[in-house]
Amino acid sequence: MRMTQLFTKTAKEPPHDAESANAKLLVQGGFVHQEMAGVYSWLPLGLKTLRKVEAIIREEMDALGAQEILMPGLQPKENWMTTGRWDTVDVLFKLKSQTKKEFALGATHEEIVTPLVKSFISSYKDLPLAVYQIQTKYRDELRAKSGVLRGREFGMKDLYSFHLSQEDLEDFYGRAMEAYMRVFGRCGIRAKVTEASGGDFSKKFSHEFHLETPAGEDNILACTACSFARNAEIATVKKGGSCPECGAALGMTKGIEIGNIFDLGHKFAEAFNVEVTTEDGEKQLVYMGCFGIGITRLVGAIVEASHDDRGIIWPKSVAPMAVHLVSLSSKDASLQARIRETAEGLYDDLEKEGIEVLWDNRTDVSAGEKLVDADLLGFPLRLIISEKTLKDNAFEWKLRQEKTSSLVTVQDIRDEVIAFAAEE
Amino acid sequence: MRMTQLFTKTAKEPPHDAESANAKLLVQGGFVHQEMAGVYSWLPLGLKTLRKVEAIIREEMDALGAQEILMPGLQPKENWMTTGRWDTVDVLFKLKSQTKKEFALGATHEEIVTPLVKSFISSYKDLPLAVYQIQTKYRDELRAKSGVLRGREFGMKDLYSFHLSQEDLEDFYGRAMEAYMRVFGRCGIRAKVTEASGGDFSKKFSHEFHLETPAGEDNILACTACSFARNAEIATVKKGGSCPECGAALGMTKGIEIGNIFDLGHKFAEAFNVEVTTEDGEKQLVYMGCFGIGITRLVGAIVEASHDDRGIIWPKSVAPMAVHLVSLSSKDASLQARIRETAEGLYDDLEKEGIEVLWDNRTDVSAGEKLVDADLLGFPLRLIISEKTLKDNAFEWKLRQEKTSSLVTVQDIRDEVIAFAAEE
Repeated sequence: MRMTQLFTKTAKEPPHDAESANAKLLVQGGFVHQEMAGVYSWLPLGLKTLRKVEAIIREEMDALGAQEILMPGLQPKENWMTTGRWDTVDVLFKLKSQTKKEFALGATHEEIVTPLVKSFISSYKDLPLAVYQIQTKYRDELRAKSGVLRGREFGMKDLYSFHLSQEDLEDFYGRAMEAYMRVFGRCGIRAKVTEASGGDFSKKFSHEFHLETPAGEDNILACTACSFARNAEIATVKKGGSCPECGAALGMTKGIEIGNIFDLGHKFAEAFNVEVTTEDGEKQLVYMGCFGIGITRLVGAIVEASHDDRGIIWPKSVAPMAVHLVSLSSKDASLQARIRETAEGLYDDLEKEGIEVLWDNRTDVSAGEKLVDADLLGFPLRLIISEKTLKDNAFEWKLRQEKTSSLVTVQDIRDEVIAFAAEE
Repeated sequence: MRMTQLFTKTAKEPPHDAESANAKLLVQGGFVHQEMAGVYSWLPLGLKTLRKVEAIIREEMDALGAQEILMPGLQPKENWMTTGRWDTVDVLFKLKSQTKKEFALGATHEEIVTPLVKSFISSYKDLPLAVYQIQTKYRDELRAKSGVLRGREFGMKDLYSFHLSQEDLEDFYGRAMEAYMRVFGRCGIRAKVTEASGGDFSKKFSHEFHLETPAGEDNILACTACSFARNAEIATVKKGGSCPECGAALGMTKGIEIGNIFDLGHKFAEAFNVEVTTEDGEKQLVYMGCFGIGITRLVGAIVEASHDDRGIIWPKSVAPMAVHLVSLSSKDASLQARIRETAEGLYDDLEKEGIEVLWDNRTDVSAGEKLVDADLLGFPLRLIISEKTLKDNAFEWKLRQEKTSSLVTVQDIRDEVIAFAAEE
């Protein structure tokens, strides 16, 4: 894309009320636009990253054998009365139609997916079964803040699994945990698995996945030696105490929760009476698990994990575009024409190859501003062509996460970029 | 996909309260699941079609030069007060937070997109500009009915364009109209362009795009000779009267509205004071257009346009899958093994080629039921392998929209299917 065609612009300063790095950088770079506290629009460059994160999640959920569906935001009150959660989930938005019918806005989807799946299963042969969706959630958060980390409206992947036995649920739970680690790893995040409360859902166990960062809202007790970690909310152990698994000292750390998984047991199956016939001809309640990833929050976490004081450093797998091509102006008309022509030639070549490239083709902006923008936007590879590089008949090649740059000749540049884009 | 893995099942009968063909067939086939009047979940096969329709729309909107964004469902009351529509749009869902802050649920997005775009434009150089989204809309319809045609929650593509002059808006309006006709054509629908009221938005003109069908809710006066058509709501002409364009007789027909386009003039630019500096250094309000396609409704319209008494006849471009492979059981164990092996070989080959195929590999279902399901689901190409076809070392090849079938040998079948899938 040519930068002159992109309707968004970077801002000189981050928004004055932004607290967190993700809020500052995502807004300043024009990736998102805040509509009100906890509610954002996703703009062209931000949406590209969001779609790449979604594609990674979709691949891993499909590989787990889950089937994608799409459930509604608008949900009948009756379903929430059936589970007793109409009055207990404090973040539930409620609304009324003109005809005084009451609805909930989906904060989660157990109330929809359980009767939905019930309508299709009757026998043990129909299990196990897992469905998921990538969909918008609404939660009436009192403290909507921290950019896209805690929103009133946010993108989520929620997966629900249905099993004949506790063992089968636990087997799936383990495989889902591995799939989650692959999702986060592919997004450039080393996630920490944290033991947590079963919450409203269950008296049983649950696990959270955290990005460790001082910007996190959650306090986590983590072993200094092994992988043990427990959300401080439920910890019966203390900082400085001994790790219950290896005996080493426990430390306190902070994290952003980017995923969670729950063993729901029979809770929702009981509420909606979801039974199947077993091989012996008996009726039996199904076991359920639920598995969430906050997708828009994950994009915020990626920014928290990967930025410096000049801007974002996107991991290549989820960068809005791989390449930021910058052509700097020359006052010499013939040099200026050569710069433009050479940049455009490369731009056309890369577009033809399906490589995503943003070409900063602006003519009314200084070299300094262009470089500041390139660092702020943070695409993995920056290429500069200027009077100076043309003397070597070359482009300057610089990776966002590295300090040094090199020169690549005009002859070689196309193939080098193609090779770079193809690297894992 | 193997049918034994698909969690949805077809129903023997359509839902008893379904009025329209799309409601009957989409629910009976397991493409969608009704959660309440006007609110549906999209199940795996239905979601595949929805995504294909979205992809077609995305391609055509990108080709128009529009940039994709994603705006929120939750919208601040203030924005709707600014335009005066908080109290005038009767289908607007309203809700309150725990802290008594009031929101609208997005029935349309002029109230969000106008200030959003305003924050990025200041000069005539920033225009023209068009943004669009594929997003979920909420409308408090009194008469939510007709399957996915009139929903309280539905998928929509809405595009908003911003221009420096009326001429430029009209030029874009014409190009958008052509893009719309391409979208509908690619979805297998011959749309009729109908003159309509500017509605709440404007005193100026608007155009609707209709699928002509007796199942439609809109009455349209259409010329029996030329392409003139006008929504009967605004028609100053009458059935049997003369066409204002060619003088031939006017007839009355019915249609489902699948798209609409509006010249918004200065209405929203005035409300939010969206001005740019002209080349002469003057300040000037921008001109706006808005362009909608009801995406989930379009899927319903495709079904209305293309079905028979046995089920849906999906156009190939938007069919959930291209191929429905049916293996019929044999009581002869060795023949049964050959049938299964041959079907599985083809299934694996096609999956490897990236061709979407549903393999009805069920063993506890009669041949009759399998064929009834194949007609109901309505994929373009049905392949049968059975004792009978094996005698000719062949598959039976039948197109859903044709009555006759032929035989294709086991040797040739893979290449023939690949060629079929590649055809436009």
